Parts: sequence; structure tokens; C-alpha cells
Amino acid sequence: MALHVLISNDDGIAAPGIHALVKEIRKIAKVTVVAPDRQQSAVGHAITMNYPLRAIPYERDGEFFGYAVDGTPADAVKLGVRYLLKERPDLVVSGINHGSNTAINILYSGTVSAATEGTVLGIPSIAVSLTTYDEADFTYAAKFSARLAAVVLERGLPAGTLLNVNVPAVSPERIAGIRITRQGKSTWEDTFDVRRDPANREYFWLTGRMVTTDTDPSTDQIAIKENYISISPIRYDLTDAAMVEAMKEWGVGDLK
Amino acid sequence: MALHVLISNDDGIAAPGIHALVKEIRKIAKVTVVAPDRQQSAVGHAITMNYPLRAIPYERDGEFFGYAVDGTPADAVKLGVRYLLKERPDLVVSGINHGSNTAINILYSGTVSAATEGTVLGIPSIAVSLTTYDEADFTYAAKFSARLAAVVLERGLPAGTLLNVNVPAVSPERIAGIRITRQGKSTWEDTFDVRRDPANREYFWLTGRMVTTDTDPSTDQIAIKENYISISPIRYDLTDAAMVEAMKEWGVGDLK
Repeated sequence: MALHVLISNDDGIAAPGIHALVKEIRKIAKVTVVAPDRQQSAVGHAITMNYPLRAIPYERDGEFFGYAVDGTPADAVKLGVRYLLKERPDLVVSGINHGSNTAINILYSGTVSAATEGTVLGIPSIAVSLTTYDEADFTYAAKFSARLAAVVLERGLPAGTLLNVNVPAVSPERIAGIRITRQGKSTWEDTFDVRRDPANREYFWLTGRMVTTDTDPSTDQIAIKENYISISPIRYDLTDAAMVEAMKEWGVGDLK
Repeated sequence: MALHVLISNDDGIAAPGIHALVKEIRKIAKVTVVAPDRQQSAVGHAITMNYPLRAIPYERDGEFFGYAVDGTPADAVKLGVRYLLKERPDLVVSGINHGSNTAINILYSGTVSAATEGTVLGIPSIAVSLTTYDEADFTYAAKFSARLAAVVLERGLPAGTLLNVNVPAVSPERIAGIRITRQGKSTWEDTFDVRRDPANREYFWLTGRMVTTDTDPSTDQIAIKENYISISPIRYDLTDAAMVEAMKEWGVGDLK
């Protein structure tokens, strides 16, 4: 039986990154696309419970391309796996995101969230991002994604673990190599732009810049700066095991 | 100088859980409330970048209670710390959520997200939930939160780690004790209710039930079932360290 890959993203079903990805993954497997109908960046792992969802067939070049869902990336994957696909997919690939998802950005990422939802549903999952906000060529990143997808289809992933992949936005010959990485600690120096509306009421617009505080080459943040493809295995079990042990000395039993 | 606690939630600034919490925390510290203006459940760690935010003073019993923000829990905490509070808070407390935030639900939780954002901003943070969806008495959970907050204000927390607290919704004398726990693996058996709108177009509504597959008393899920208050130290570094090592054997360097 043919392998079946569910593809989603957070840039929306019309974004160029998902089209490049679908084109390459179709060479190795049957593909079903279930993706948000519009951009859903920075939605984190939101799911929609208080509103209904719709899934509208979306055409590209006169052919059925996939289902456009009026929800979040996690909604799209959940609806795809639980209802739209008639069989359980062998793999979920989310992307290719236009912009990096490294360090603290993983928390806010809709791209990673779609892959996380795949993992929650027990399916090996990969999130892929191209590390530029400028106009981008997704061709190499898509070809690399298909090669990595083939490996994961063969080897599987441990339950609860997904792969978060970032591909430097440079020409293929400038890619330095591939590094297995961990999530960096770099974060945002964010501020709010304070403005006044026409009625002179104050409002706020989030702005800021990502500041690289990481220096360790084993982090995703530094790997991509050095033109390496970064592959970070991440998990959704958030337990801080060391702190579980440390807190046993706190004597919190007395607080009851 | 008085200690200063920022309080937020995901049930919205008018919810009874945040009022009970504020009342108790005010006994040990100066409190500023910055919370969503309406219910924001299951928003995950979403932040608002594409729209402006407003912060409207919210009154309760004729007095200023806090700022109501038309955004997510993470937005509220970010805006509070980066702009509204004139000093850096010593602690962020999020809650008290009406409903448990254990096992897989931690991923989707807006309550946990508010505390995570506090942690990202470098401030010790606690998320508190009361484990019932029925009508609830937040009094004991609020008193416990204040006792725990006092301990955290004194001891601090490691960078990147927050506490996710669940309080069983039983009378205080039936609370069995306090357990330091890890995130359980229980998840949702979710389905989509397929319906037709008046124009006979299909739509989907997410439904389902949480299924307890955990059996280990050291998980949050089982602790609350046994009427223990569960305190799980969680972290936002998602790296699966064991898998980083294992993947070095995969030979992915050849994929370039």
C-alpha cells in the first residue's frame, strides 16, 4: 500500500512554501493537504472549540490541491486525521514555513504546532522552515524535506517526539551540512509601539527583534547562522525532571 | 519595597477564579491584574502581531480592578510586563482556571501560556487550575495559591521553569495532600461532529472526551484523581535530549 503523507502549514494553503513541499513529497508518497485557509502565524497550539470549522476544497492550476480549513494549523491536522482522510497517514509534514522557527519562536510557531498535533495523534511528524523573511526559493528546502521524510517513514520516531527542521535560505552549494541540534535560548527584545486612534484612544502594536544570545554551535539558532540545516528533536512532554527532584526538598506538603 | 505580583488568566477578567485569586494574593503583595477581556480557552501560546491591542481599565464593585486586554493570555502578560506595569513584577500568577490543565491539556492551555510568557520574560511564574467544569468554589484553591506564591517569591524558580498547579475541586478536608508531579500522557479521544448549515453545507464541531490512560501516581492526571494537589514543574525548552544523541547515529549528513 502506498505511503500517505498529510501536509499542513501555518502560512495558509495558498503560500508558495506548501506548494514546493507538496511537489517533492508527491514523488515519494500519496499526499493529502489540509491547511489553514489563511495565514496563521504565532497562533501557538491553539485549537478551535467554540466555533465550527469548515473544510473547503482548494484548487490550484485547475486541479484539486487540498482542503482549506478556516481554523488553526492544529485544527487542520486534527480535522484531517480524525475525519477528512479515509486512512491514517504515515507521516505529517508541516511547512515549508516562510521564516525561521528556532529558539523561543518554537513556542509561538503555528508550523511546529501542526507537527505537534500530528505527534499527539500518534503520527511521526516533521516541521520545516526556511530561514528568511525575504522573497525565498523553497526548491532546495522541499527536496531536502522529501529526503528526510523518506528516512522518517522508514525509521519512525519515538512516541511524543517530532523533528523541527530549519533550512538556511542560501543556495544549495552554500549549505555547510546538517546538524542535530537542541532548541536555543535566544529570545525577543520586544516592545509595544504605543499609538493613538482617530478618537485619540491609546492602542498597542507588538514589535521588536529576535536577539541571538546563543553561542553554542549545538543550538538551532547558531546552526542556521553557520549555514547548517538544523534538525531539533523536540517533545511535548514539558516536565522539568530535574526540578521534580529538586522540589521534593521544598517541603510543600506543609502548605496544605 | 513591596513585592509585586502580576495576575492574568484565560477565562477572562470577569471570571470568578481570578477574583478569588486576587483577593488572596493581595494579602501578601501588591497586585496588578492584566487579563483577557473575554474567555480565551485553548488558545495555546498564541500572540497577536497582526492586530493592535487595547487595554481598557476594568472596574469591579466600583473600584479599579485591572486592565482588560483584547488579546490572548500571552498578549496580556507581555503587555503588562513590557508596558503597563511601571516596575518589573516579582511573580506572575495565572488563574485560577475553571477546569483542569493536566497531561496533554497543558499544550492547549491559555492559563499555562500566560505563566509560560512570564517565564519567557524572566519572571518566576505559576499557573493554577481548579479541576472541575461544574460550578466551583475557588476559595481554598486561592488560599493555597497565595501560600505557594509566598514560597516561590522567597525561593525563586530556575530560569525557564514554571509551576503548573492543579487543585482538586473537593472540600479542603478531603484534599489528600500535595504531590510534586510530572505531566501525564493522557489525551483526548476527539471526534468531529459533522453537521449541515441551513444552506446544507457541511461543517464540523470538535468534540470528545479526555481519556485517562495514565496509571502512575507521580503524574498530574492521577494525583488529582486521588485528590492530591498536583504541582508539576514544566519548562519551555522542548529539546528531546535523548533523541538528540540517538539521531547522531542516523547519518543524516548524507541527506544534504
